[in-house]
Amino acid sequence: MTYELHYWPTIQGRGEFVRLALEDAGATYVDVARQDDGENVLMDRLHAGPHPSFAPPFLVDGERVIGQTANILLHLGPKLGLSPSDEAGRLWVNQMQLTIADLVAEAHDVHHPVGMGLYYEDQKSEAARRAVEFREQRIGKFLSWFETILSRAPEGGWLTGAAMTYADLSLFQAVEGLRYAFPHTMKRLEPRLERVVAVRDAVAVRPRIQAYLASPRRLAFSTDDIFRDYPELDPVKG
Amino acid sequence: MTYELHYWPTIQGRGEFVRLALEDAGATYVDVARQDDGENVLMDRLHAGPHPSFAPPFLVDGERVIGQTANILLHLGPKLGLSPSDEAGRLWVNQMQLTIADLVAEAHDVHHPVGMGLYYEDQKSEAARRAVEFREQRIGKFLSWFETILSRAPEGGWLTGAAMTYADLSLFQAVEGLRYAFPHTMKRLEPRLERVVAVRDAVAVRPRIQAYLASPRRLAFSTDDIFRDYPELDPVKG
Repeated sequence: MTYELHYWPTIQGRGEFVRLALEDAGATYVDVARQDDGENVLMDRLHAGPHPSFAPPFLVDGERVIGQTANILLHLGPKLGLSPSDEAGRLWVNQMQLTIADLVAEAHDVHHPVGMGLYYEDQKSEAARRAVEFREQRIGKFLSWFETILSRAPEGGWLTGAAMTYADLSLFQAVEGLRYAFPHTMKRLEPRLERVVAVRDAVAVRPRIQAYLASPRRLAFSTDDIFRDYPELDPVKG
Repeated sequence: MTYELHYWPTIQGRGEFVRLALEDAGATYVDVARQDDGENVLMDRLHAGPHPSFAPPFLVDGERVIGQTANILLHLGPKLGLSPSDEAGRLWVNQMQLTIADLVAEAHDVHHPVGMGLYYEDQKSEAARRAVEFREQRIGKFLSWFETILSRAPEGGWLTGAAMTYADLSLFQAVEGLRYAFPHTMKRLEPRLERVVAVRDAVAVRPRIQAYLASPRRLAFSTDDIFRDYPELDPVKG
């Protein structure tokens, strides 16, 4: 069974949350748009069939085509052994994933507050205004929420306790992205986010994740991506 | 079985998507924050327990507390007879619901591009810039996507064909909100959105929805809500 992941070929973006799950599980998959002519295949497939996706990423799993990052993970979780076996547990993991999706959308909008069709250079002053609230309130609010969850979870150190789920992988990715884009803010916040950082560290040393991060399949963070390192949006003294 | 819906008491907001599902199904529920002292109950409950929600709405269903609008509907769908009986169908409905959630988030950010903690009056010029892309590109792109889905669906007129799901109710709410906030843009777009408008109309005449819309439980749209009627953001000639 080979999964087809369809996502923009030059950034981590939202596709990375799916990629981390596939990599951690050792699943066989093709990152379609990174193959020859793959971006055309992606574009054709995006709008085709009875279940078109509004935007990448989407996953082709046999006859099925599934879009929306959190929805793809909801589908993959049980198949990859990355979600709880009970329905209540799966919904709870989905709830955490959706909250990470909200954080990711806000991280994007910090550098594109006026319009995704405009360049950052055309909305720098608006971005500077928006970044204040994001770094002074929102990042801390989101990550403290996860810290609270970890403090109340059953023993084991993961968001649901003893077993890692795709939400832990996604939290890893969120922390990595925020460290890249808001290094000063994260340095200030992390001392109060011991458990969140421990999840990040525990994901980073999983053998398949470690191999993946060292491979060319893991693209670097960049200022074309969702998380962007623009120093003016994260001054030394925030 | 009485459900407890927890949401801000003075706006439709994201809670409305859950409310429409409960109302259409004739479910017994309490809109907690609209009761005496209910907002305090909501705030206490929001942060309590092993599964706190990041923000309202959240649903209390017996012992379970479930947050994130799309996740609440994923849970309620099968119980209320508002989602397909097969897992593939349920994920497809979830995918459409998540795309409506994206549309709703963008509709909100049009009037709050710089920060949700600031007043609209403090970000009017940024809002005016952001509104251009939203009304000229994004609304049409989102609603055309639904129009395409309806054109490819099995016969029946609903998003999945013969049976209405909560995604149809949510599409109704999105169209209503957009008509309120962007009346000129919608007037221009609707001639090409025949099937979407037909879903909106078919929802509006469902007996329980009709009764709900005429009741005091249905709050009016307002400029304190997600969809806001600011004429400067939707000029006559967009």
